[in-house]
Amino acid sequence: MQLSNFTDYSIRVLIYLSALTEGEMTNITEVSKYYNISKNHLVKVVYKLGKLGYIETKQGKYGGIKLKMHGSQINVGKVIRQIEPLELLDCSVSACNISPVCLLKRYLWDAKEAFLKELEQYTIDDLINDKTKLISLS
Amino acid sequence: MQLSNFTDYSIRVLIYLSALTEGEMTNITEVSKYYNISKNHLVKVVYKLGKLGYIETKQGKYGGIKLKMHGSQINVGKVIRQIEPLELLDCSVSACNISPVCLLKRYLWDAKEAFLKELEQYTIDDLINDKTKLISLS
Repeated sequence: MQLSNFTDYSIRVLIYLSALTEGEMTNITEVSKYYNISKNHLVKVVYKLGKLGYIETKQGKYGGIKLKMHGSQINVGKVIRQIEPLELLDCSVSACNISPVCLLKRYLWDAKEAFLKELEQYTIDDLINDKTKLISLS
Repeated sequence: MQLSNFTDYSIRVLIYLSALTEGEMTNITEVSKYYNISKNHLVKVVYKLGKLGYIETKQGKYGGIKLKMHGSQINVGKVIRQIEPLELLDCSVSACNISPVCLLKRYLWDAKEAFLKELEQYTIDDLINDKTKLISLS
């Protein structure tokens, strides 16, 4: 049971952008260097986060990316719910013949909700105690 | 976020064995046919469940496998805790440079515990309402 790289990278991008100062922009190359994650992956992540309304992209010479809202307004549990594939098991009848009489899928659903509810207590800003320290980690 | 096939198969094997009548044994070939899961996978699953003390294996002509305890004594959350790799993200410093200042791993740990606590409410017997129905699904 692991979160996908896509979700991992998404949260990391949101953390990085939340540490920018008011009005500051960055770009995928910078984020890629900071985390040592391939630009190809980050292009997809940034596109998805843009579609979800978290990131604003400005084209052109002075363009770049930044958050569309404050990090304190981005709920970690909600982001995971939106990005992570959360089907813990394939309980379709074609995948498992006991599916019609098995209650595991119901209990797994409850467990998944308990997992997400826990993470819904936090925003991106809650993930880093001191954002000034992020700079020195690059 | 998915449970591994290994965990999926483990729970299914335990369900199957819990439906046997008192003293009855089965074998990997039967379980393999019932679920349409390869014998190779099931050999590993049965070995692991044996090591964990859930399954008894009897060698020889009249041998086979059966549960070492009643299905009502096997806790689903505990089985998942014992079998499933539960490191949701690789938060080692070598994998992610912000690890020293990032609290996500702590919150993910809490969320994982909430997930498991939910499943610790149930035993293998709780997963199937009517075990007699299992037979007709083969």
